[in-house]
Amino acid sequence: MGFDRILGGVCAPMGFLASGVACGIKEDGRPDLALLYSEAPAAAAGVFTTNEMKAAPVFLSTKVVAGGQARAVVINSGCANALTGKQGMDDAAGMAQAAEKALGIPAGQVLVASTGHIGELLPMDRVRSGIDQAAAELSPGGNTDAAKAIMTTDTYPKELAAEMEIGGKVVRIGGMVKGSGMIHPSMATMLAVITTDIELPHETMQDWLSTAVEWSFNRVSVDGDQSTNDTVLMLSNGAAFPDGHVLTREEADLFYRVLCWLTGNLAMSLVKDGEGANKLLRIVVNGARDDMEAVRVARAIANSNLVKCSFYGERLNVGRIAAAAGSAGVPLDQSKLSVFLGEHKVADGGMVLENDPEDVQRMMRRDEVELTVNLGLGNGSAYFLTCDLSTEYVEFNAREKS
Amino acid sequence: MGFDRILGGVCAPMGFLASGVACGIKEDGRPDLALLYSEAPAAAAGVFTTNEMKAAPVFLSTKVVAGGQARAVVINSGCANALTGKQGMDDAAGMAQAAEKALGIPAGQVLVASTGHIGELLPMDRVRSGIDQAAAELSPGGNTDAAKAIMTTDTYPKELAAEMEIGGKVVRIGGMVKGSGMIHPSMATMLAVITTDIELPHETMQDWLSTAVEWSFNRVSVDGDQSTNDTVLMLSNGAAFPDGHVLTREEADLFYRVLCWLTGNLAMSLVKDGEGANKLLRIVVNGARDDMEAVRVARAIANSNLVKCSFYGERLNVGRIAAAAGSAGVPLDQSKLSVFLGEHKVADGGMVLENDPEDVQRMMRRDEVELTVNLGLGNGSAYFLTCDLSTEYVEFNAREKS
Repeated sequence: MGFDRILGGVCAPMGFLASGVACGIKEDGRPDLALLYSEAPAAAAGVFTTNEMKAAPVFLSTKVVAGGQARAVVINSGCANALTGKQGMDDAAGMAQAAEKALGIPAGQVLVASTGHIGELLPMDRVRSGIDQAAAELSPGGNTDAAKAIMTTDTYPKELAAEMEIGGKVVRIGGMVKGSGMIHPSMATMLAVITTDIELPHETMQDWLSTAVEWSFNRVSVDGDQSTNDTVLMLSNGAAFPDGHVLTREEADLFYRVLCWLTGNLAMSLVKDGEGANKLLRIVVNGARDDMEAVRVARAIANSNLVKCSFYGERLNVGRIAAAAGSAGVPLDQSKLSVFLGEHKVADGGMVLENDPEDVQRMMRRDEVELTVNLGLGNGSAYFLTCDLSTEYVEFNAREKS
Repeated sequence: MGFDRILGGVCAPMGFLASGVACGIKEDGRPDLALLYSEAPAAAAGVFTTNEMKAAPVFLSTKVVAGGQARAVVINSGCANALTGKQGMDDAAGMAQAAEKALGIPAGQVLVASTGHIGELLPMDRVRSGIDQAAAELSPGGNTDAAKAIMTTDTYPKELAAEMEIGGKVVRIGGMVKGSGMIHPSMATMLAVITTDIELPHETMQDWLSTAVEWSFNRVSVDGDQSTNDTVLMLSNGAAFPDGHVLTREEADLFYRVLCWLTGNLAMSLVKDGEGANKLLRIVVNGARDDMEAVRVARAIANSNLVKCSFYGERLNVGRIAAAAGSAGVPLDQSKLSVFLGEHKVADGGMVLENDPEDVQRMMRRDEVELTVNLGLGNGSAYFLTCDLSTEYVEFNAREKS
């Protein structure tokens, strides 16, 4: 059983309408309000930032997801509604209420997300007009407008969709994400919305989404800083099965596999936005005692400024890589450590190997570099995507307001 | 009871001789081998890197410290003897043996440390000649030569000493450190040696040194990366009390206080080396449930690239500071959070405050900036020293070999 990539983003599954408008939250007039609407009641799931300084909309959406159902998602860009105290909570609730009213749906069924500057209040008059306008413009072809309206420093809208056969019918999954990893991470709050027209119970969907996020969006690191607003939402409306359908084990496996393909590719697109200016680093850790130890070692390497500077300078520095691995808090055995740059072994038995400098240079000059660390301790493995640390990163984030 | 700052570094206490020579480990001919010798048997203590990729000399010195006694310390710069496998272990042992032979002392009494390039073998012939030469040149005035010989990218030697009255006699403590924090952290393995001529049992000294290091060297972060070679050693030879002396409670308090003054100031000098190019950030966290939670929050802020970039750009960004605090894994209450830049309150009750932009600019332009975060949860507090993240940091570490 396979699947095919299709167009349509969050509107690819049946019964989802979307729109994106400019309502004046962003000073430059770019689109800044997106609306997604499910014609039928939908089950909802969500994964949210673990940062203790969660933005107001994160609190609101966490509560809606706990209820298990949602009909709409409203997202603004240009203002994060974070560190905004009680007024911020009221404003997040005001966004939901405005959407409920504009869409004529019962209370408590609207998910809210925000991204942009921290510490500023939302211009609620504009937001309310924007929601009215977005509701009026909802369409089955509005997916790209929505994907554009959630962008901050992203250089292009990011969406993806697939179809597969389940229960004798063609069913669909779609998604959009915002976040620009390579040089603009300061506003790279990661927001993603995933839709599907199969029917999934809330608990199952929450379980699958949490795991898929852990092995995709949570494997992407630009600078180790975690946003106040990071949010991944998922809605399933069952529109493909008007009479209902319980997934077989085989169908569930297929759908979960496609969900992971979708989240994995959306996560990759986060790191790749900005490509050309920077280098994509894929850090693979094998031979760990278990997968979670592999994750910790991979994350430590991906977050090491010294490792990332050396890739910017295109100079291989095995010592920095090994030292970063050694700082992960995972017990290691130096004598079993090997390191590969692409297919070139550059360290073995805990010792740095001599390599043809030209071969190494050729690998380091690539736009995408794969670094594999084998710990020699077991069968655990994990990967992390990151990028190099460049003077452009520092300059951008030294100037930038958010 | 007070204390006075004096000259003399590690040779300020009686009975310690030192020297520093150039033996050709560094390619540019600068001094690269330091020797410290105690005329009488001395108790030894040490604190070592927790990195799992510990360099060979770290293994050797850990073993010597466990024995509780040492007579000499030999340190080379220019080569870290890290990721060097079995040969590296043999070479570290070879350094100790060469010093034992040159000094005519029993086996197992020499502490060894190395700093410099990772993944390269020591040129042992040169190291052995260097040790012989350093032994021949030992003198009570050799402290600055030793402090110079342990430098890598440091721009000046760093030493400090003090005297105080204990048991009716003047006693001394001295120290030296290497490590250049601001823009050259890649070779900023931190090595420190502390000497005293009072008599301290091994266990007491180990306990005091561990605590003093925790609240000084472990409160300094340049980039969060931990070296394979970080080492702090301490020797007490009792030369001030030929007939022995057990410290009273009051004397012990005084000595511990001076030890903390010494380690605190040596740690500060690490971050300050390179000053002018960069900004010193002192991150203070108050109002935590306990001191260790305060440390975790302060470390998260000090290690945030986004926070550090904003100080490089001299633009206050309270959102980044709060988001970094929120990512420390410590439960917080946003509504109790306040943030101060110097004495200016810039956030209160979890909300960003409006401030006179000129006041803020004036504070941000200073060479040393103090940022205080009050969590409003209890009486725990901690500080962290760090510096901004500059394009110079990236450029240096992109070029640099180690």
